[in-house]
Amino acid sequence: MRVDGRTMRTLWPSPQLDALFVIDQRRLPHELEVQSLADPEQVFQAIRDMVVRGAPLIGASAAYGVALQARQDASDAALAACMERLAAARPTAVNLAWALGRMRERLMPLPVPQRCDAAWAEAAALCDEDVRVNESIGRHGLPLIEAIARRRPGPVRVLTHCNAGWLATVDRGTATAPIYAAAEAGVEVFVWVDETRPRNQGASLTAWELGQQGVPHKVVVDNAGGHLMQHGEVDLVIVGTDRVSAQGDVCNKIGTYLKALAAHDNGVPFYVAMPTSTLDLSVRDGLAGIPIEERSAREVTHVSGRAVDGRRVEVQLVPDGSQAANPAFDVTPARLVTGLITEHGVVAARAPDLAALAVAR
Amino acid sequence: MRVDGRTMRTLWPSPQLDALFVIDQRRLPHELEVQSLADPEQVFQAIRDMVVRGAPLIGASAAYGVALQARQDASDAALAACMERLAAARPTAVNLAWALGRMRERLMPLPVPQRCDAAWAEAAALCDEDVRVNESIGRHGLPLIEAIARRRPGPVRVLTHCNAGWLATVDRGTATAPIYAAAEAGVEVFVWVDETRPRNQGASLTAWELGQQGVPHKVVVDNAGGHLMQHGEVDLVIVGTDRVSAQGDVCNKIGTYLKALAAHDNGVPFYVAMPTSTLDLSVRDGLAGIPIEERSAREVTHVSGRAVDGRRVEVQLVPDGSQAANPAFDVTPARLVTGLITEHGVVAARAPDLAALAVAR
Repeated sequence: MRVDGRTMRTLWPSPQLDALFVIDQRRLPHELEVQSLADPEQVFQAIRDMVVRGAPLIGASAAYGVALQARQDASDAALAACMERLAAARPTAVNLAWALGRMRERLMPLPVPQRCDAAWAEAAALCDEDVRVNESIGRHGLPLIEAIARRRPGPVRVLTHCNAGWLATVDRGTATAPIYAAAEAGVEVFVWVDETRPRNQGASLTAWELGQQGVPHKVVVDNAGGHLMQHGEVDLVIVGTDRVSAQGDVCNKIGTYLKALAAHDNGVPFYVAMPTSTLDLSVRDGLAGIPIEERSAREVTHVSGRAVDGRRVEVQLVPDGSQAANPAFDVTPARLVTGLITEHGVVAARAPDLAALAVAR
Repeated sequence: MRVDGRTMRTLWPSPQLDALFVIDQRRLPHELEVQSLADPEQVFQAIRDMVVRGAPLIGASAAYGVALQARQDASDAALAACMERLAAARPTAVNLAWALGRMRERLMPLPVPQRCDAAWAEAAALCDEDVRVNESIGRHGLPLIEAIARRRPGPVRVLTHCNAGWLATVDRGTATAPIYAAAEAGVEVFVWVDETRPRNQGASLTAWELGQQGVPHKVVVDNAGGHLMQHGEVDLVIVGTDRVSAQGDVCNKIGTYLKALAAHDNGVPFYVAMPTSTLDLSVRDGLAGIPIEERSAREVTHVSGRAVDGRRVEVQLVPDGSQAANPAFDVTPARLVTGLITEHGVVAARAPDLAALAVAR
């Protein structure tokens, strides 16, 4: 993707393969700051503290965390301890475990001296694959947008929640991939960007990257989507996901379920962009089986942004003494999902289709 | 209601009947500042700029605006011009028009010299009536909470959206009236307070007034309600309303519709506290017929709160160049409403029941 016109990924290794560079996403949209992570513990902290976030990007970062470990000590015990630590950085997204599992399978059979080179190569391959997967999601999602564009004049209006964009992946994004594909194909597209409280990934990240790519958009509060759908202002919804269960239940950023209900109530198609690495066949009932991360109350009670003097300032929103709860994800039942846009095509959110997809994977 | 233990209404006339005192609600929860409004134009500005807000309080404030006008010039032309101006301050709530209509009916038949005294008396009567209405709403809503308390141990967990509390009325609130009645009756009650973006009336006003009354509560982002209901954490929803149509469609703060959908999907009762002054029989289909105020994009793009040094600071949330849309209300179709809690009892959100209620009014 482009930043100030320059092509850039969300993470990249140093030329000497001794560090990982990442964009500090907590500082966007007001500052573009690149952090250098020099050891697996720094990668752990970057994932935990949401310097990097987004299910695919967390996986890619963790893969490089293993590579940084392999550089120091690639013994079985050291790699296993490192992977266990990284896996615990965030509980909800399945890509983290998936990426670590892939690194384990690649590295463990190798003699220890070969593991370091293999780890850096595998992390790079995993990143390149992420980009290809997202390009495929874009290719398979594009016809959904084109079909609407053919039906009536004016831009196709897509609503998205949170950031399942370039910034949540290595490049192009998942939910944004069909949008970028449409823009590149000359299809007029407009995006309603859910602010996405409490961390405002929509207002700060999705709006920023859409702006950088020149895609027309407007930010709305999370409360507005239902009203917009009632009044025919949304043609389709595309969101990302952190984990999809065997029967097609979709775990994603808190509030996704409310948008799915509104889409269903208003006959608006509700699509989920899902790399197959996000599928978790070990969980059938997503509502009962997917652990939901409870994050700090401070994310709700305080918010930070840019003050008029340009400084980043955190302000308190609630009265002293008021507590807050902060569940970070919710689960949208499969019955509310029109389809899953995967790198292998659009599939139904149903057990047989997902089982078949898992075989393709 | 109590503020720091002292009983207080949200507005009151000066002892000399030459000004109206109101709490500047834009400064809560961090500062309690009382503004003095000395003429109808200042009342207009206070309503438009949301120094005062909440459908019943807007009506009460406008009534005093007419009284302030009557003090200066109580001629037919002056009163009519004043009422026309005040009616235009906010478009959505019907109480504003209702309160002005009541002042018109009371004052216009009188000789001009008698109008000033009558106006101040009528505004005071309207306020006292608001308090009585809310007490009745509390009395009729209390059994709904008590029934849940009898069914299982632990506090009854009510979710509310926006502020339909004491601060939205003259006293006690509408949606909060059953909650305060329960607390006074010794029924254990806990409130999930929706933050209510973009103006954060939940986080700043509802949380503050519940805290002042000692009612246990937690603030959650607007995205969280569906998840809480899916997991059995909400026993019932009570919200206020700005206008209810003849067939029972409920116009209320943006995002209410999403909560109603989630309540319906999870079998959680969804009640609307409605003074009958909020009923508008002139509109049948609320979705088509109730004008929705589009407010400034800046309410979405910026937020203000208390910085660590105690100062009130406004910060920008979105990147430079990103636009925002800001519809302020939405309409919940009658089919999603379990019941309307009025001062005359709980009624169904159906045309025949509302027609009967209008006769009682």
